[in-house]
Amino acid sequence: MALIVQKYGGTSVGDIERIMAVAERVKRWRDRGDAVVVVVSAMSGETDRLIGLARQIQARPVPRELDVLMSTGEQVTIALLSMALSAKGCPAHSYTGAQVHILTDSAHNKARIRDIDAARVRADLEAGRVVVVAGFQGIDEHGDITTLGRGGSDTSAVAIAAALQADECQIYTDVDGVYTTDPRVEPRARKLARVTFEEMLEMASLGSKVLQIRAVEFAGKYRVPLRVLSSFKEGEGTLITFEEDAVEDAKIAGIAFSRDEAKLTVLGVPDQPGVAHQILGPIADANIEVDMIIQNVAAQEAMTDFTFTVHRNDYARALEVLEGTAQQLNARQVLGDPQIVKISLVGVGMRSHAGIASRMFAALAEVGINIRMISTSEIKISVVVDEKYLELGVRALHEAFGLDRLEVA
Amino acid sequence: MALIVQKYGGTSVGDIERIMAVAERVKRWRDRGDAVVVVVSAMSGETDRLIGLARQIQARPVPRELDVLMSTGEQVTIALLSMALSAKGCPAHSYTGAQVHILTDSAHNKARIRDIDAARVRADLEAGRVVVVAGFQGIDEHGDITTLGRGGSDTSAVAIAAALQADECQIYTDVDGVYTTDPRVEPRARKLARVTFEEMLEMASLGSKVLQIRAVEFAGKYRVPLRVLSSFKEGEGTLITFEEDAVEDAKIAGIAFSRDEAKLTVLGVPDQPGVAHQILGPIADANIEVDMIIQNVAAQEAMTDFTFTVHRNDYARALEVLEGTAQQLNARQVLGDPQIVKISLVGVGMRSHAGIASRMFAALAEVGINIRMISTSEIKISVVVDEKYLELGVRALHEAFGLDRLEVA
Repeated sequence: MALIVQKYGGTSVGDIERIMAVAERVKRWRDRGDAVVVVVSAMSGETDRLIGLARQIQARPVPRELDVLMSTGEQVTIALLSMALSAKGCPAHSYTGAQVHILTDSAHNKARIRDIDAARVRADLEAGRVVVVAGFQGIDEHGDITTLGRGGSDTSAVAIAAALQADECQIYTDVDGVYTTDPRVEPRARKLARVTFEEMLEMASLGSKVLQIRAVEFAGKYRVPLRVLSSFKEGEGTLITFEEDAVEDAKIAGIAFSRDEAKLTVLGVPDQPGVAHQILGPIADANIEVDMIIQNVAAQEAMTDFTFTVHRNDYARALEVLEGTAQQLNARQVLGDPQIVKISLVGVGMRSHAGIASRMFAALAEVGINIRMISTSEIKISVVVDEKYLELGVRALHEAFGLDRLEVA
Repeated sequence: MALIVQKYGGTSVGDIERIMAVAERVKRWRDRGDAVVVVVSAMSGETDRLIGLARQIQARPVPRELDVLMSTGEQVTIALLSMALSAKGCPAHSYTGAQVHILTDSAHNKARIRDIDAARVRADLEAGRVVVVAGFQGIDEHGDITTLGRGGSDTSAVAIAAALQADECQIYTDVDGVYTTDPRVEPRARKLARVTFEEMLEMASLGSKVLQIRAVEFAGKYRVPLRVLSSFKEGEGTLITFEEDAVEDAKIAGIAFSRDEAKLTVLGVPDQPGVAHQILGPIADANIEVDMIIQNVAAQEAMTDFTFTVHRNDYARALEVLEGTAQQLNARQVLGDPQIVKISLVGVGMRSHAGIASRMFAALAEVGINIRMISTSEIKISVVVDEKYLELGVRALHEAFGLDRLEVA
C-alpha cells in the first residue's frame, strides 16, 4: 500500500462534472489499495469572483480579511469533493488548512508554511477514509487564517506529502507534464519524462507555470518524489527526480520564460558599502520579491547604477518605494520599465558543457533581439528582453538547442 | 459606553452596497462610543447557491460536508464587512465560528451552541476594534465545522451577547419590528413597541419569522435584552422585554402562524405505558422535531390513536420512520397530511382573562373554518386547520381580537 498525495488545481475542479471526475480518479487509486490524501484549489473563477467582491469595497483589501475571504474558495471545493467521494461509496473527510494545523507565518496573502500536524490525517487514513485538504491556506500562531498566495495549493500538497512521508506527491493540472518550453509559444515543444529537481526549480522560478516554485523547493528539501500529470488525460506525466544520471543526456532541459517582469533602475547612487542593502531593504520590507539584480559602474565617478527586476504586479509599489529611497540617497534618477520579459535556458548539462551562453546569445542576435540584462547560475542562463521579443526568442532558442528532437531512450 | 451586539441577516448584507450601508450604521454606533460586535449571515442567495452545488452531487449531502460548505457563506460576509469597516476608517477584525470557539454539539446542520470563549472578542473590543463574527456556525469538540441550521445567526448573536454580557442584542432584519401578525396576510397588522419574552417565544415557535426561536430562548435564559429593528429604515423596532407590567394591557399580543406543518397519525396502537415513547423515540432519533402531540381513545378497546405534527420538510422522513414503528406496534393504519397550517393566538393577557379560547373558536366557526387539532399553553392557543384557510383564519382572528386598533400610550 502506497501513500499518495494528489493535488488538483482550479481547472481540474472547475465544475461539478469535473469534481465528479476527480472523485472517480481518486477512487481508482484507493480501490487499488493506496491511501490517498487529496489537496484541492478553489474552483476556477472562484478566486477571481471573491477578489472582485473585495475590490468593490477596497482597491487594496485589508490583507488579513482578504485571506478570510479567499480561503472560502478551497473550503467549498473540499466539501464538494468529499460529497462526490461519498456519493461514489468512498468515505472521505474534508479539512480546512486550520483544521489540520497548517501553521504558517503571518504574512497574509503570501504566507509560508512552517509546520503541519498530520495526526488527524493519519487517523482518517487508518480508518480507510480519503482525506481532502484545502490547499493554499493555513493559520498563523494567533489562529488567524492565512493564504499562501496564488498557486500555493501545490506547496500545501508537497508540505502535506512531506509531513506524511508520502510515497509520491502527484500534481494534477491541465497540462500532461513538463515541456521543453510552453507549447503555446513553440508548438514543437516536447514533454520530458523526467527532469531533475534543480532544473524544475529553475524552470518554475523562471515562470514555467506547471509547478509553483515553493512547492518544488519544499519537495527538494524534504525529498518528496513529485510527479506532474494531467487531470484530463491518462499518462505518466513528468517525474521530478533526484537522480541526475537518470535524466536524459541533453545539455538543456528546457526554455522557461516569464512574462510578468518589470525592471527598475536607480541611476547615480554612491558606490559605497551598504548601498545595495539601502536600496533593497525597503523593497523587502514592503514584502516585494526581487528577482535579478545588477549593479554597474555609473558614468560619474564614485557612483553606481543599480538595476533589479520584480513581478509586474509589484511594479507600481516598488517604484513608489524606490523613489523614496532614491531621494534619501540623492540618486540622480529612477527609471522603470514594466514591459520586459525574461527567457532562460535551463539544464544540469550546462555544468559539463562549455559554450552554452555564447550559443544562446548568438541565437538571439541572429534574429535581431537586443539583450537588456543577463544573469547566470550553475544550471541556467537568463536574459531580459523587450516584451515583444518573447515568442521569437523562445522559438529561436528551442531550435538552436535542438529541443524539438525526439528523446533517445 | 454600551456593549452592543448587532446581527444582520442575509438580505441586509445581500450585496456590496448593502454591506457598505451596514458598515456605515455600525460605524455610527461606534462613533457614539459604544463597543460593537457584529454577527452576520451569508449574503442572500449564497446559501441557496451552495446547497444547489451540493445537490448536484448528492440529493442528501453528507451532513458533515454540507456544514463545511455552508459555513463559507458567512465567512465571505465577515471578510467583506470587515473590509467595508476598514474602508470607512473603522478598524475591524473578522472571526469564523471556529475562531471564537463557538462550541456546539455534533448535530451537523442543526447543531446547538454549548459554549463561547469570548476572550478574543473582548481583547479586540478593548483595542478599539469592531468585531465581526460569522453567524450560524461553530465547531464541535472534534474541531469539525458545524452549522446551527437556517436562521441560526440570530442564535449566534444572542449567544455572543450572553457570553459578553452585552447591554443589548439588536437583530436587524427586513422588517421593522414584531407585528400583531404578518402584514402580508393582514395589512392592518400593527407593530408592537414591546412584547414579552414569553410571547415572543410563542410567536417565534409558531412561525413568526422575525426571530429564530432558539435565539429567543437563549436571550430569555441569559436575560439578554433583545431588540428587533429594520436594516433599511430608522426606528426603535420592537423591544423584547422581561417586564410584563411594562407591556400594553392587551389580552392578545398577536397572531402567529406556520405554513410549513405536516400531520401524522397512527391509528390503533396498544393503549399502554411507553407507547408514546415507542412512537416518538425513533422520530427523535432521526433528528426530527415534533411539535403538537395529541392522543385520543380509539374506536377499538385498549387501543389508542396518536397524532403529531412535524415541519413539512421532515414529513417524508417522519412518515418513513413512523411506518416502520407502526409495523412493530401492529398498528392498524398510518395517516399523513402535509397540507395543514397552524394558527395561534399569543398573549400573556390570557393568564388573567377567561373565555379567550371560546371566542377564538367562535370567530373561526363564523367564517366556516373546521379545526383539525387544538393545543393550548398558558399564553397561547393553537389550532391546526387546512392550508387553504390560513389567510381567512388569521384575518378573522385579527379582527375578532381588535388587534388593528391603535395602541393606548
